[in-house]
Amino acid sequence: MGFEFWGFLGFWVLVIGHSPLIIPPVHFQKITLIGVGLLGGSIGLAAKQRGVAARVCGLVRREESIAECLAAGVVDEATLDVANAVADAGLIILCTPVGQMSELAAAIKPHLAADTIVTDVGSVKASVVTAVEPVLPRFVGSHPLCGSEKAGVIHARGDLLEGAVCAVTPTEVSDAAMVETLSNFWTALGSRVVNLSAANHDAIVARTSHLPHVLASALVNAVLAAPRAGESDFFGTGFRDTTRLASGSPEMWRDITRDNSDAIIAALEGLQSEIDRLKTALSEKDAAALEEFFTEGQIARDSWLADGENK
Amino acid sequence: MGFEFWGFLGFWVLVIGHSPLIIPPVHFQKITLIGVGLLGGSIGLAAKQRGVAARVCGLVRREESIAECLAAGVVDEATLDVANAVADAGLIILCTPVGQMSELAAAIKPHLAADTIVTDVGSVKASVVTAVEPVLPRFVGSHPLCGSEKAGVIHARGDLLEGAVCAVTPTEVSDAAMVETLSNFWTALGSRVVNLSAANHDAIVARTSHLPHVLASALVNAVLAAPRAGESDFFGTGFRDTTRLASGSPEMWRDITRDNSDAIIAALEGLQSEIDRLKTALSEKDAAALEEFFTEGQIARDSWLADGENK
Repeated sequence: MGFEFWGFLGFWVLVIGHSPLIIPPVHFQKITLIGVGLLGGSIGLAAKQRGVAARVCGLVRREESIAECLAAGVVDEATLDVANAVADAGLIILCTPVGQMSELAAAIKPHLAADTIVTDVGSVKASVVTAVEPVLPRFVGSHPLCGSEKAGVIHARGDLLEGAVCAVTPTEVSDAAMVETLSNFWTALGSRVVNLSAANHDAIVARTSHLPHVLASALVNAVLAAPRAGESDFFGTGFRDTTRLASGSPEMWRDITRDNSDAIIAALEGLQSEIDRLKTALSEKDAAALEEFFTEGQIARDSWLADGENK
Repeated sequence: MGFEFWGFLGFWVLVIGHSPLIIPPVHFQKITLIGVGLLGGSIGLAAKQRGVAARVCGLVRREESIAECLAAGVVDEATLDVANAVADAGLIILCTPVGQMSELAAAIKPHLAADTIVTDVGSVKASVVTAVEPVLPRFVGSHPLCGSEKAGVIHARGDLLEGAVCAVTPTEVSDAAMVETLSNFWTALGSRVVNLSAANHDAIVARTSHLPHVLASALVNAVLAAPRAGESDFFGTGFRDTTRLASGSPEMWRDITRDNSDAIIAALEGLQSEIDRLKTALSEKDAAALEEFFTEGQIARDSWLADGENK
């Protein structure tokens, strides 16, 4: 997808293919990333490359991370000091595992300017919004769907958000202008914003993202972590691809699955029905039922691939 | 991997890297493929390219397949006639779904020369060997692990077997010289032969291959085939990769899973323990147990990737 930004008359024109789309300007004097890993770093890079921020600041926990962030070129400055990081920021983005966000909200609150917008990039939204919004009224949850099993700022890419869906989950008390500014920010970074409630987001990603992830880990634990003699010769690309997600960060997935446990349990029940259906067909050696099971999957997946883009 | 074959003194020298390995010559005047899809076609191409056969013949079921096989360059001749296909073949390879092999064995039997070797490429071995060996004493089961979800002779590649493991599953009554010739054939096509019993093969691939496959289909059936409103924006590369195998041939997987149902049920029970372990941790919101679940998977998978080649 080719696109360009031109600034004129105080507006930007976003040209995607042949369809110019006038979007309001979005520009911050300072954006602060709290936590600078793959996603935070990629947001910093994209914000700098696209001129969305005059300055990008990163708050990190370890002294050595400062040099890493600067070397990766994803921030203009990095610091261990919360007050410095937060001061004068127009937008603050929490990019840590979701379990840390409640504590972070309390830590940054004393240093926030009155009009600072705060958001996050967590993969689960209801728990984060419920914990952070009462502390920080100008908080709106976000979730750019562009993760990778590669962790760390070293893998940050300025185009990671390009074409990705970004969920924004306002509540009834969210300021509308603030939600619009935040949406424009994510749009300016190349992502496609979808507004929905935190609860609906969590129920959806439990099925589309968390379920594949936990299954990949369960499969690895059942096979690789409990190996059978002579088995090592018999793994192929199928096993590798099916289990790719199991290489993701355990700390991140611990927090996501704990915070979204109810929706994931519901998603697992849907899967269990399919496993039970398969077991019945297997134990009865029912060729017609087995063929139906695989045909349903093949048709559903191939239709999905045919419908979508960038899959 | 670079390699070359030189014929001299009646032997071939296989040079892999700097390690010359003398292997016995293997050459057939005629090889016949029964069924010419992705795998059969790739075997035909490889056999022609590597000079392992003077002539490759394909037996197909539909008139239009003759032109397709010839256009793909995977055979020297293609026919609908069993007697013609089988006559004078030194090696016959059954490349159909495993459910058809028993019937095929009976069909080719009247036309076989006394010394013809017969093998197959089915993904499950005990059912095939049990059905075919009593009919064709010079049958030995094979399974080159190089499938793809792309079906059809149009996707055939001469290097598909290169570096792939090829299981060969002789029984107590298999002629040793015949097994050696067959093993040399698969080696000459670039694969790495592993000898093991059909039962052991089936128990292993139930875990390493069939389990990931049925899980991919179950996941697609539970999610894509029963969609939730607004869900279509929220699929990413994780879902795509985890479900890739679900696009495989339903007919092929119906036969494989029916024939290997006991071992797959056993593999599903191992998986069920992991799912139950996860459900308990989720319902108790037990962060330590969740982290352990994901850490075990990450460590096991990353060690496996680090150990292996071509993964």
